[in-house]
Amino acid sequence: MQRGLQISARGIEMPESPIRKLAPLAYDAEDKGVKIFRLNIGQPDLPTPQKALDALKSVDRTTLEYSPSQGYRSLRQALVNYYDRYQIKLNADEIIITSGGSEAVLFAFMSCLNPGDEIIVPEPAYANYMSFAISAGAVIRTVTTTIDEGFCLPKVEKFEELINDRTKAILICNPNNPTGYLYTQREMNQIRDLVKKYNLYLFSDEVYREFIYTGSPYISAMHLEGIERNVVLVDSVSKRYSECGIRIGALITKNEEVRKTVMKFCQARLSPPLIGQIVAEASIEGTEAYSREMYEEYTERRKCLIDGVNRIPGCYTPIPMGAFYTVAKLPVDDAEKFCAWCLSEFKYKDENTPAKISVSGREVECMGETVMMAPAAGFYTDPELGKDQVRLAYVLCKEDLRRAVMILGKAIESYNALNGNSGGKE
Amino acid sequence: MQRGLQISARGIEMPESPIRKLAPLAYDAEDKGVKIFRLNIGQPDLPTPQKALDALKSVDRTTLEYSPSQGYRSLRQALVNYYDRYQIKLNADEIIITSGGSEAVLFAFMSCLNPGDEIIVPEPAYANYMSFAISAGAVIRTVTTTIDEGFCLPKVEKFEELINDRTKAILICNPNNPTGYLYTQREMNQIRDLVKKYNLYLFSDEVYREFIYTGSPYISAMHLEGIERNVVLVDSVSKRYSECGIRIGALITKNEEVRKTVMKFCQARLSPPLIGQIVAEASIEGTEAYSREMYEEYTERRKCLIDGVNRIPGCYTPIPMGAFYTVAKLPVDDAEKFCAWCLSEFKYKDENTPAKISVSGREVECMGETVMMAPAAGFYTDPELGKDQVRLAYVLCKEDLRRAVMILGKAIESYNALNGNSGGKE
Repeated sequence: MQRGLQISARGIEMPESPIRKLAPLAYDAEDKGVKIFRLNIGQPDLPTPQKALDALKSVDRTTLEYSPSQGYRSLRQALVNYYDRYQIKLNADEIIITSGGSEAVLFAFMSCLNPGDEIIVPEPAYANYMSFAISAGAVIRTVTTTIDEGFCLPKVEKFEELINDRTKAILICNPNNPTGYLYTQREMNQIRDLVKKYNLYLFSDEVYREFIYTGSPYISAMHLEGIERNVVLVDSVSKRYSECGIRIGALITKNEEVRKTVMKFCQARLSPPLIGQIVAEASIEGTEAYSREMYEEYTERRKCLIDGVNRIPGCYTPIPMGAFYTVAKLPVDDAEKFCAWCLSEFKYKDENTPAKISVSGREVECMGETVMMAPAAGFYTDPELGKDQVRLAYVLCKEDLRRAVMILGKAIESYNALNGNSGGKE
Repeated sequence: MQRGLQISARGIEMPESPIRKLAPLAYDAEDKGVKIFRLNIGQPDLPTPQKALDALKSVDRTTLEYSPSQGYRSLRQALVNYYDRYQIKLNADEIIITSGGSEAVLFAFMSCLNPGDEIIVPEPAYANYMSFAISAGAVIRTVTTTIDEGFCLPKVEKFEELINDRTKAILICNPNNPTGYLYTQREMNQIRDLVKKYNLYLFSDEVYREFIYTGSPYISAMHLEGIERNVVLVDSVSKRYSECGIRIGALITKNEEVRKTVMKFCQARLSPPLIGQIVAEASIEGTEAYSREMYEEYTERRKCLIDGVNRIPGCYTPIPMGAFYTVAKLPVDDAEKFCAWCLSEFKYKDENTPAKISVSGREVECMGETVMMAPAAGFYTDPELGKDQVRLAYVLCKEDLRRAVMILGKAIESYNALNGNSGGKE
């Protein structure tokens, strides 16, 4: 009965994060004095609202005790008022505070899906949905959206082709990470009809609702009539208040049975972060000016990145309507190889390159500059898709974005010259 | 192909927390003006170290950004020094910061166990291990420890009876929640030999190492020779610094393959709480006086509770060597029924009962006092076990503990008089 210590099958199956997997190359590059423009991660550089930082400094508790497993009622009540601004009518009992939106996705899957159950997700998709599905033993089936069609929702037939006895849910991210796509009323109605017809759960990740640039209406899954018991909304304060580190999200549903089950998972992990809840609550009211400024800033950054990328020969990206990402097609043979090469081989230097950069607190001579991007292949399940695409986040200031785009152009040129590719210039 | 919206099988199987399930009755009692002495939860009432609270107030970041998925290196380095005090030799790469010890248990199970794999756990056991096992599809098998033997570890044969091809791990909590038992060197060697013979994982939850009252040595799973790759240590700063709310724990192992897998789960949930890490790091160094005072306080509280309970006719509890819980046998027909009755029916009043109590911020007339306990049945898997037992935590001040024990005695008397039981007095 001797056996080896084994890693679980799901542990082996778990993907590495496409956003974080190039991190070791980035550390090495920085160690060598290369300045990196990080277009790979969705970590806003903007300050957290002052009101939230003030709340943090004025925590007057002497014991940092457990909070309720569902989260503080006062925070849930503040969220009720927040959602009301978006015509989403809730009461505080319908909101469960989670450790980031991540935990909300995990608990939704854990509560609603059995091993082998299938979830239909439009791809490219946020890679961690796959991780949470694997954690729950569920299976992600994808309908493909394409860069040439601007990542709009595929026809209803494409969904129906995938629906079988194991299909339990549809998952959407709206506005979308990684594409920046915003679902139209017509598309949301199509999803509603599917959900209704097959009585599926609709998991809707709407953490980017604050980031919509086109004047198009934001249609929440919570706005769809007749599927109230099907919808599980995933939310997070991370992006909208630039407080990703406090780990405060929410799982929201009008389905009481789902809530009761989710609460069992919540009780097992005892409570969401206490201090994060205090910071989040302070962020919700009285930060309208902050949100407006942030919105204006991102509107300009978006223009800056998109215009810049589309001016690089052979590059193309649709204009994203929301979130702060875009998926771009590059004129390279393999975007993953190219992204790694940008970190391990390439550096650019001109008269505007700084003389020194700070690496882990020490000043070192700057040897050149480069860009870090997330290869888009990791956002697709089909290994043939997205090979020449990258996800770019526009969470840097405009000046940095302009320089990053210029350097990206130079990198493509050098890479293709080295590899004998013509890039976009044949 | 019409189907209903279903709850997952694991969601249905998930137990309710035995510690939190009586909470609604407690809210009702408080609403009626009954003062409750909470002996049910492990939430220390002591203040968090001032140094940690100061660190919280002096957070000078302007963006509350994601932290690394593994946790800040500076915190991991501080923990290396901390464990060194206990002769546990680690490097910072061997430590992964988690959202509380809870997440460490979940990720250990997720990474090491397949659905159907079995974990042997001495019972009574911390109820949430069961929840995390269900989340991972794993099965808890129990060896029973008994109150009459002071909850010492059963003979090795009892373990071997359970070992089969699906057995993948042993899990211990040392010092133990709920029993307060501390494993001896001989018992730890017995576990080591089993782990080695059958090449099992040893998950060791040692969050209560600071709470050992008998002068007996603390033997960590990390001290056991020859099973370095088998051991996964679960830890948390919650109890030792009275900061349960910050949600900072750790998963520690010298098994690199396990760490790599756990890190995939960590990347999926992005990062552990940022502010919690800052508070935890400040708690580790320069808080020796705090730890000493806390230790002395708990030593006295323990004496106060144990002596008091053992003086109630028909009650018995062994003397716990560690943690801040004890399991006590009460002279009642059904401890769960009795605990519910204490909240819903019973109240005690004498000249020392306060005139007013504060309920959710408002002052109300105090109608009497009662005690809240965790029925111990929830800590056993065998439904026949622990029926006349409760878990009592001694996290109240001595004066409150004395009064709570007196009221518990009165409650037992009334309950048995009402039910026609003789209690312990036949």
